[in-house]
Amino acid sequence: MTDFESFRKQALDELLDWLRIPSISTLPEHKADMIRAAEYVRTALERAGLAKTSLVDRGGHPLVYAEWLGAPGKPTLLLYGHYDVQPPDPLEEWVSPPFEPQIRNGNIYARGATDDKGQTWILVKAVEWLMRRDGRLPVNVRFLIEGEEECGGEAISRYVSEKPPELAADAAVICDSEMFAPGLPSICTGLRGIVYGELHVEGARQDLHSGVYGGVAPNPLMAIAEILTALKNRDGRILIPGFYDRVVEPAPAEKEAWARLPFDEKEYLEKEIGAPELTGEPGYSVFERTWARPTLEVHGIRGGFTGEGAKTVIPARAVAKISMRLVPEQRPEEAVEQLRAAIAAAKPRGVRAEFRLLHGAPASLVDPENLFVKEAALALEEIFGRKTVFIRSGGSIPIVGLFNACLGIPSVLMGFGLPDDNLHSPNEKFHVPNFFAGIEAVVRYFERLGA
Amino acid sequence: MTDFESFRKQALDELLDWLRIPSISTLPEHKADMIRAAEYVRTALERAGLAKTSLVDRGGHPLVYAEWLGAPGKPTLLLYGHYDVQPPDPLEEWVSPPFEPQIRNGNIYARGATDDKGQTWILVKAVEWLMRRDGRLPVNVRFLIEGEEECGGEAISRYVSEKPPELAADAAVICDSEMFAPGLPSICTGLRGIVYGELHVEGARQDLHSGVYGGVAPNPLMAIAEILTALKNRDGRILIPGFYDRVVEPAPAEKEAWARLPFDEKEYLEKEIGAPELTGEPGYSVFERTWARPTLEVHGIRGGFTGEGAKTVIPARAVAKISMRLVPEQRPEEAVEQLRAAIAAAKPRGVRAEFRLLHGAPASLVDPENLFVKEAALALEEIFGRKTVFIRSGGSIPIVGLFNACLGIPSVLMGFGLPDDNLHSPNEKFHVPNFFAGIEAVVRYFERLGA
Repeated sequence: MTDFESFRKQALDELLDWLRIPSISTLPEHKADMIRAAEYVRTALERAGLAKTSLVDRGGHPLVYAEWLGAPGKPTLLLYGHYDVQPPDPLEEWVSPPFEPQIRNGNIYARGATDDKGQTWILVKAVEWLMRRDGRLPVNVRFLIEGEEECGGEAISRYVSEKPPELAADAAVICDSEMFAPGLPSICTGLRGIVYGELHVEGARQDLHSGVYGGVAPNPLMAIAEILTALKNRDGRILIPGFYDRVVEPAPAEKEAWARLPFDEKEYLEKEIGAPELTGEPGYSVFERTWARPTLEVHGIRGGFTGEGAKTVIPARAVAKISMRLVPEQRPEEAVEQLRAAIAAAKPRGVRAEFRLLHGAPASLVDPENLFVKEAALALEEIFGRKTVFIRSGGSIPIVGLFNACLGIPSVLMGFGLPDDNLHSPNEKFHVPNFFAGIEAVVRYFERLGA
Repeated sequence: MTDFESFRKQALDELLDWLRIPSISTLPEHKADMIRAAEYVRTALERAGLAKTSLVDRGGHPLVYAEWLGAPGKPTLLLYGHYDVQPPDPLEEWVSPPFEPQIRNGNIYARGATDDKGQTWILVKAVEWLMRRDGRLPVNVRFLIEGEEECGGEAISRYVSEKPPELAADAAVICDSEMFAPGLPSICTGLRGIVYGELHVEGARQDLHSGVYGGVAPNPLMAIAEILTALKNRDGRILIPGFYDRVVEPAPAEKEAWARLPFDEKEYLEKEIGAPELTGEPGYSVFERTWARPTLEVHGIRGGFTGEGAKTVIPARAVAKISMRLVPEQRPEEAVEQLRAAIAAAKPRGVRAEFRLLHGAPASLVDPENLFVKEAALALEEIFGRKTVFIRSGGSIPIVGLFNACLGIPSVLMGFGLPDDNLHSPNEKFHVPNFFAGIEAVVRYFERLGA
């Protein structure tokens, strides 16, 4: 095991180097960093002994591809991860800088630590360890690592839609979700979909003085407030006509399993949220509200003056970043149409309003009875010593739906993040023991599938 | 008159130099520019032959003081202006840079051109011209020029509240308002008051991922939308309990005079506003809505992500810049208390909300029958050749109320701006012929008062 221990240490050091590259896919100024981050993982796969390692160009940020197909008759797994990360702002809230990874109290603190470089590195290193130890793998693998998970995933969407022969596989394995609780192995069987876009509102031709024109000039910021409150009420109920028509409730057995999960709502509120109280639709549990109910959120409002001090401006235009999380059977295109109609109906007089779609993806469900899911659950149980739970995630991994629709394969979501990993927030972290256990669990999973 | 023409030309050149100093009082990084701008006008007053020119320190940005008291038995005028300007953003909408003044089509384009460097310069140059021509003035004058008009006016407020002997005067003269229409001399007899502050809303301890927490986490941006729409309805009616209790309607005669002003609402909408339609309270004319009715506006909303692309964040906190314009008899302190109570009542669950006051000032009215107002109207008529109209302004010049309350003097608001001067907006301008006519009108005014 000494060998494995020094391997683990090196794997960690390499992960820290990868985390130092600020591969923020949404910001054009990081285009070169994106290529560096892609090349970093491609080189690692090459060193691990995989063939055909390459950067695949389908527009946007490159995809990383690699394969090892030396186990005829054995299953083929499509190993997915992403090397892009969320923007790190607000920077001032980070204890250590987001792209200078620091290990404190057994956690790696860095943007992308858990989402998703740390978890992608688990797959890379599990394969490398098996290759190093055995000179071969017990299963066939194809890596597909994208750089646009945080910004719409257009390149991978184009590539997978082509259904290229090099993506033929029996199942996809994705490490981009979280464990329900520390030490509790978890497989995610459901993800919400998403529609993300911008609400553009225009009033006057140019910014106006609120003294001279206040009382007659339309205010696009106020119009955004009026539209938002017309779209969702204070109970979190979305008021868009037809929006809930296709929503499918979880099966009673699934809801009962959720009710048995170790969960203390008060502790969740205090430790994870830290707000005066939880919000959302009455009559639905926290799991239902975050995993199985659609949402509408506003992420930012641009326009007017937000600097220090006072400026009495009525802005000419304003933009709100808006997303809706979708649940199984809701259709992104239809939801966008419904949203647009609701905005047109909610728009106050004096302004023009337009919703511009940035990206969308449907929700997805995976059958826990599927062989690849079951074997993953058993591998996790072996390493963590506890029974694997089946949970859902409120987040969106659009690729799961795409793999199903285009490649006809299920996705196994083995997540090693923790609920308090601050993904998309300041001080994102990844628990080092989970990184190591993740490598072992994936190794064991491949061994079981190849047996 | 050749002499006056070369004087005018030099006055214009000097104004352009003054406009080159980016004296933005709300932005701390312009502190040195503020002192440069103050010193620029102090030096000009010294050169004009005034005594006791000085920068008065009452905290914040300096006040400029100067006096000439060589006309015993004649009235003493307190000449007010401000050398600070609004922030220039959005910069990309300026045709020429805000602090590189350019003359196009007979207008000076620059931040501060009309508000208020150009108009302050009228007072400075009228005095200088009289001193140069006659070696003396027909009246006594004291200049008081501040650098915080756009950011709350705390220094001048402290200074005037001390009721210092050097501010003793019979009336104040302020050039910081606008003519009702090109060529139509106008005196402003009413100003709205203001309350300006920030609504701070806090939800979770830190930014959260909208996938993982959407459905249970409070969203401070949405809370701001909910609070704003609870404070004002779509008709512009403010819903804050008690808010309208003290509002005094204009006298029927004043409303009738307004109705006789040359005004085409369609042209106003198209040329000045440029929005699909006007907004505001039904049943009130444009003049009533902008001059005599209180308002509530949001000027900017900070929080979350507003950059390019998509970030699925539920921000931990958000801030809205909010102001209310007040009309005669409304009390700023009471309005703030009413606003705070309404915010507390409107706040959705899951968040904390707090209104932080930045500054406030009451509305003010001036009696058009006052001698100093009447003589100003006649002086304007002499220069412009048309009967002076009495109008109000929807803006706030808090110093007017302070001069009345602390010094017991009325303020004569002779404005030379034009309605389309874009004050507080990109491409702020000042009509050069109005600058020259303004100097002549003030000279004539002083001559009439000294006769």
